[in-house]
Amino acid sequence: MKQIIILGSTGSIGASTLDIIARFPDQFSVLGLVAGTSDEKLEKQIHTFRPKVVALSDPQAAKRLRDRLNNSAVQVLEGTEGIKEVACHPDSDLVLSAIVGAAGLVPTLAAIQAGRRVALANKEPMVMAGQLMQEEAHRQGMPIFPIDSEHSAIFQSLEGHRREDVRRIILTASGGPFWDFTYEQMKDATLDKALKHPNWDMGAKITIDSATLMNKGLEVIEARWLFDCPPSQLDIVVHRESIIHSLVEYRDGSVMAQLGLPDMRTPISYAMSYPERVPLDPPQLDLWNYGKLTFYQPDTTRFPCLGLAYDALKGGGTLPAILNAANEVAVDVFLNKGISFVDIAQVIEHTMNASTPQSLTCLDDALEADRWAREKAASCIHSLAS
Amino acid sequence: MKQIIILGSTGSIGASTLDIIARFPDQFSVLGLVAGTSDEKLEKQIHTFRPKVVALSDPQAAKRLRDRLNNSAVQVLEGTEGIKEVACHPDSDLVLSAIVGAAGLVPTLAAIQAGRRVALANKEPMVMAGQLMQEEAHRQGMPIFPIDSEHSAIFQSLEGHRREDVRRIILTASGGPFWDFTYEQMKDATLDKALKHPNWDMGAKITIDSATLMNKGLEVIEARWLFDCPPSQLDIVVHRESIIHSLVEYRDGSVMAQLGLPDMRTPISYAMSYPERVPLDPPQLDLWNYGKLTFYQPDTTRFPCLGLAYDALKGGGTLPAILNAANEVAVDVFLNKGISFVDIAQVIEHTMNASTPQSLTCLDDALEADRWAREKAASCIHSLAS
Repeated sequence: MKQIIILGSTGSIGASTLDIIARFPDQFSVLGLVAGTSDEKLEKQIHTFRPKVVALSDPQAAKRLRDRLNNSAVQVLEGTEGIKEVACHPDSDLVLSAIVGAAGLVPTLAAIQAGRRVALANKEPMVMAGQLMQEEAHRQGMPIFPIDSEHSAIFQSLEGHRREDVRRIILTASGGPFWDFTYEQMKDATLDKALKHPNWDMGAKITIDSATLMNKGLEVIEARWLFDCPPSQLDIVVHRESIIHSLVEYRDGSVMAQLGLPDMRTPISYAMSYPERVPLDPPQLDLWNYGKLTFYQPDTTRFPCLGLAYDALKGGGTLPAILNAANEVAVDVFLNKGISFVDIAQVIEHTMNASTPQSLTCLDDALEADRWAREKAASCIHSLAS
Repeated sequence: MKQIIILGSTGSIGASTLDIIARFPDQFSVLGLVAGTSDEKLEKQIHTFRPKVVALSDPQAAKRLRDRLNNSAVQVLEGTEGIKEVACHPDSDLVLSAIVGAAGLVPTLAAIQAGRRVALANKEPMVMAGQLMQEEAHRQGMPIFPIDSEHSAIFQSLEGHRREDVRRIILTASGGPFWDFTYEQMKDATLDKALKHPNWDMGAKITIDSATLMNKGLEVIEARWLFDCPPSQLDIVVHRESIIHSLVEYRDGSVMAQLGLPDMRTPISYAMSYPERVPLDPPQLDLWNYGKLTFYQPDTTRFPCLGLAYDALKGGGTLPAILNAANEVAVDVFLNKGISFVDIAQVIEHTMNASTPQSLTCLDDALEADRWAREKAASCIHSLAS
């Protein structure tokens, strides 16, 4: 029986994870759950899955939950320290890190430092402080398990093959809802259109990141650290149907790939049951039902966010953290209709240009860069609006 | 330094294998070579690669070679016994079995029985006597290594993953030159057209088998034994571009696949250097250069050979050997313009229908079925012509 902790249990990945646990109760149980402010949703999960400990980042929400759970056996913690305590619980077999955005970094790094086995569904921790995360994971001798469909595909395509034979890692990108748009058309792109991802049903932030292709840029940075792969060996191919989730090319010309229907339960369950696989038995992947799979070269002219991500990858140090923070701020304002779709890249570019290159030696470097970039991006948005 | 024996060194696979050995002389050397009648071609290979022992199936050719090689250190053997002696040489690290057609069966089985590590490029031994081959390989604890691009792809897609988690093995088929033909059009298909394979440059027999789709049928039977996979778990998808070489679907919905440019040196070198990979460094596989990959459901109405192969697979016993022998005879006569393209399936079907189901308990059962089917197919062709 594997005891699972979910950081971000009330989100989309959290729900899929709980769905798998419910389906295979002989193999998995819930040890701990962490959420942000959704105390009512968390309460329902507590009644169904009976965790030992939970935490909410919002103390008010934690208080409400505590009041309602009066006399329950579950321990309710709060704030950053409470979340870290759940993340580091010594009895877990797997900590599934799925808190959207930069907020996931601190508890995830804490869990790794505590020697816990971590599976990563949120990419921001790796983007902000990938170098630190991997160094710590190496020190603990406990590799970080990827859950993002692309990184899970890469992980699976590396299994059973030698790392030293790898020539190239190729991430696939759906191209998002605006792949066929001209740059002029993107200027008029509405929030509603941007929220319609062609293949995956995901949260709002990541769906916008897919529309700007920033999502793929963040994934490339993540892959750089997850797989200890130099930037020159990381490539992207736009693949509209999202059936091939990513590929690894070896030096004898062989290319391994992982394919599947778009269902996050596959990579999540693989991380949970590795090296075994649970019988999810989804519909068969019959490629003739698709007729064709299409492929395009990525385009950093129409999708400047992708180019900015490559700049951050090559620049290194705190630059990826700055890219990520500026992007989070810009996307948040776009979701609230404060700026236009094409402004997102503008905000990030201005923020990156205003930054001073710095190396990344500890968590505070990443957090300070994050803080600085959020302020800078906000002031940049302010001047755009005026 | 791995010592390699090549059964069928003067054929297409043999040439590619020697090409790899020439490129990596620090890793591989030639211990033995076996050919049919091409003594002049073999002589050139002897001068370049300096094997210790060679054999020709044709005693006349062996005599000519011996006369010309006068005073050379190389031992020249002949006939079935000579070939078996080379195949079983105790100093080999790998016996690469690439003799076209049924002739490869006897020396390949002998090598397995002698405890040699065997890599299989010809499918007929597995089709004719797969059950015996695998039982013997199990007994010796020495798995048979596949070289056919599809089976190598399956092997690579199974590496690092658990066999008990496999839900389905899916072989890709190019569809051959007549995929878009109606059955009526196929009646007029000429030899020249049938010899034009869209993607692979191969020998004449296998190219015709690709046009009838019998090649894929034989491969499915081969996969049944190579991977100990029940017929119900074996599937085919027609994939015109031959970029995805085959796929393995797991019970969590994950599908692993191996892709590559059509270059037999990749699967050959993988078998030779496994678990490592040699730096062949062929051109990168950039999927955007293809734009799209296409997929279709196989069609046993227009391609009856595929249906016959599935019948033989399900019938089992000596039926696959009968299918294979009738096919070899029919294709040979077609190559000599003795029958039409669509007659090939007719000859096989009549031969199979005339046969009595028998179990396969020893090599003689397979060889006797082979002999019987060749006679039956010949007489069937005779009555077609009259």
